[in-house]
Amino acid sequence: MGIVVQKYGGSSVADAAGVKRVAQRVVATKKQGHQVVVVVSAMGDTTDELIDLANEVSPLPPARELDMLLTAGERISMAVLAMAIQSLGHEARSFTGSQAGVITDAEHGKAKIIDVTPGRIEEALSQGAIAIVAGFQGVSQTTKDITTLGRGGSDTTAVALAVALKAEVCEIYSDVDGIFTADPRIEPRATKIPRISYEETLEMAAQGAKILHLRCVEYARRYDMPIHVRSSFSDKEGTWVVKAQDVVSEETMEAAIITGVAHDSSQAKITVVGVPDKVGEAAAIFRAVADAQINIDMIVQNVSAAATGLTDISFTLPRGEGQAAMAALSRLQAEVGYERLQYDDSVGKVSIVGAGMSTSPGITARFFEAMSEAGVNIEMISTSEIRVSVVVSEAQIQTAVNAAHGAFNLGTDEIEAVVYGGTGR
Amino acid sequence: MGIVVQKYGGSSVADAAGVKRVAQRVVATKKQGHQVVVVVSAMGDTTDELIDLANEVSPLPPARELDMLLTAGERISMAVLAMAIQSLGHEARSFTGSQAGVITDAEHGKAKIIDVTPGRIEEALSQGAIAIVAGFQGVSQTTKDITTLGRGGSDTTAVALAVALKAEVCEIYSDVDGIFTADPRIEPRATKIPRISYEETLEMAAQGAKILHLRCVEYARRYDMPIHVRSSFSDKEGTWVVKAQDVVSEETMEAAIITGVAHDSSQAKITVVGVPDKVGEAAAIFRAVADAQINIDMIVQNVSAAATGLTDISFTLPRGEGQAAMAALSRLQAEVGYERLQYDDSVGKVSIVGAGMSTSPGITARFFEAMSEAGVNIEMISTSEIRVSVVVSEAQIQTAVNAAHGAFNLGTDEIEAVVYGGTGR
Repeated sequence: MGIVVQKYGGSSVADAAGVKRVAQRVVATKKQGHQVVVVVSAMGDTTDELIDLANEVSPLPPARELDMLLTAGERISMAVLAMAIQSLGHEARSFTGSQAGVITDAEHGKAKIIDVTPGRIEEALSQGAIAIVAGFQGVSQTTKDITTLGRGGSDTTAVALAVALKAEVCEIYSDVDGIFTADPRIEPRATKIPRISYEETLEMAAQGAKILHLRCVEYARRYDMPIHVRSSFSDKEGTWVVKAQDVVSEETMEAAIITGVAHDSSQAKITVVGVPDKVGEAAAIFRAVADAQINIDMIVQNVSAAATGLTDISFTLPRGEGQAAMAALSRLQAEVGYERLQYDDSVGKVSIVGAGMSTSPGITARFFEAMSEAGVNIEMISTSEIRVSVVVSEAQIQTAVNAAHGAFNLGTDEIEAVVYGGTGR
Repeated sequence: MGIVVQKYGGSSVADAAGVKRVAQRVVATKKQGHQVVVVVSAMGDTTDELIDLANEVSPLPPARELDMLLTAGERISMAVLAMAIQSLGHEARSFTGSQAGVITDAEHGKAKIIDVTPGRIEEALSQGAIAIVAGFQGVSQTTKDITTLGRGGSDTTAVALAVALKAEVCEIYSDVDGIFTADPRIEPRATKIPRISYEETLEMAAQGAKILHLRCVEYARRYDMPIHVRSSFSDKEGTWVVKAQDVVSEETMEAAIITGVAHDSSQAKITVVGVPDKVGEAAAIFRAVADAQINIDMIVQNVSAAATGLTDISFTLPRGEGQAAMAALSRLQAEVGYERLQYDDSVGKVSIVGAGMSTSPGITARFFEAMSEAGVNIEMISTSEIRVSVVVSEAQIQTAVNAAHGAFNLGTDEIEAVVYGGTGR
């Protein structure tokens, strides 16, 4: 049997009891005959506590030192997990990101992995030891400074190590049983998806489903590394994230048209009213927003009213970035000459995702009909090859999710008692 | 001006306020024109908390992983201190022991420094930055694993770096104003010693004065690196630990005969009663104790009683090791054939230390007379070139210290309000 990489999030190793439970699971995998590499996040709230400490001594902690500080969190969890495994009678050795050969660029706080040279991990495995690796961290190729990978970093560490070690699978553990057809908190009939393609997972994640981080899925897709998303609190099979061909062949030859419904309730919408309909006006607006480091999502430009020569431009963005975007646009009023700004922070986005969509006509129509029948007002629309998204008022998100879920027969009669949580870093 | 290495213990950086105060002091030194290298211990009780965590998951935490875990403590304090310094407008960069070039052997938990290659520190200094270095830790030359130096490790890190960087001085900061003629908690007339030789400091430390750790003083003595022991809570000059010649030349040509009185109240005494007075019996006893990793201090073997051919062997040892020593000796009874063991854990040791002692006859006599006049019963005696130590009952330690302090005119009329604390790791 081959190498298995397992990643445990902060909620799985929140305290000594959690660490011991994870140790049991790691040893069980080892006993099955696998070589096991474990990637851990910091325990529970450690990272937040360290950030609080940094803020106590510095109004704007320098990024290099913040990385040095935060990496102490994984150092603690990995050492403690190695101890717990050893006390079960199995050899275990912990390694920092640097020791594990996770080489990154020098962008502190959001470093990208540029190489993985896991010589020490391979040596430990060849000696029969279980290797524990700190997630979320690496070492800069140029400065030799300690770096962190930013949000979702531990997932990415796990996938990158799995690829470098030619592992059979990368298992991502959290307190959730897998990826669901919708968020079970608002759609009680949601079911666990047994297999899903990288592309669908990326769309689900990008559209607000808090399952895996985009970077980690992109990395897995690029190198075709299967990810098994599962719960550290049960032995149930979770969701396999694999390449599209493997999803189809595994199912009843007939791929599901719609795989799941994602929603994002943290959106805001800005409308720039009365923009002169001239070349370059829209570009100036979006340049200003981009310069403020705002990530905009959907954009709608109304057809210009011939009488006035004015048009409206609307776009959505993460709610947390609303203030900054409004400020950036305000500074632009004289230059662009728009009439006024409208800000609506009570909108959300509901998306249907499915690889079968591109070959099944009528999906968009069925989705819109379901919204209409449920009385949901669609404010904006965007589509991709395997996704249709609509912006609706926040109050109608649940209605929209339920309607979409029902319209595509995603449901089960059996309601699973699960908590649909976010993944850690 | 040259390089100054400053070491701050855990009590100096116990919280954010302490870190900020240390940052101010570091910046002040930098502003005087020095290049500054700072060695920090873990904040406050961090190390104890990490040890507690280790014990929660493992009855006997493996040494390699314990080192990995504990080094997280200095990682936190050094990063936070670097942040605090930067927020004062000065460039500061933190370095782990490994990054600072602290190369050790592979003895986890008590590694010895075998080389210091501070290339990254020199680079940081040459670029005008303040370098912050994690105390207490290094990296094994052979295994490349993270190691810790054991008790007093941070002091040793500071001196070793000072030597490697050819620093002007190594300043050791704690919550104590310097080295005193006696522990001010039990001798209110104790005065701060302005200058003291390495040799006297070693004797004071070995005899129980909690000032500097032996290893650090030995290192400084070997390379003649001046140590300035001072308080991080005041700007007062502390105590300079220098080579013997520099103590004499600085004073009134006439070196003080006695420099200070040390005491150690954590001693125990074991007496092996009725040992056959044959060649090899004592050796067997001390071999058994040594095999149990017990550090014995003074030894007294009574003159054998001719009638019985039996003798008694007494020795002192740290009280914490008493149980283990008794167990080791019990297992030996059949082999050696002694009569019985006596254990007294209410003894202590009082020592006078002074470089002038070797050239001033009558010191020992004056010391014993003072003990006698104060009614102190001497149980055991040992001497070195510059020290006389006596074992007394624990209840008489304070009386003995006061009497010795008075007999050699070490006192002042001015009682200083100081706290005489231990140094951290």
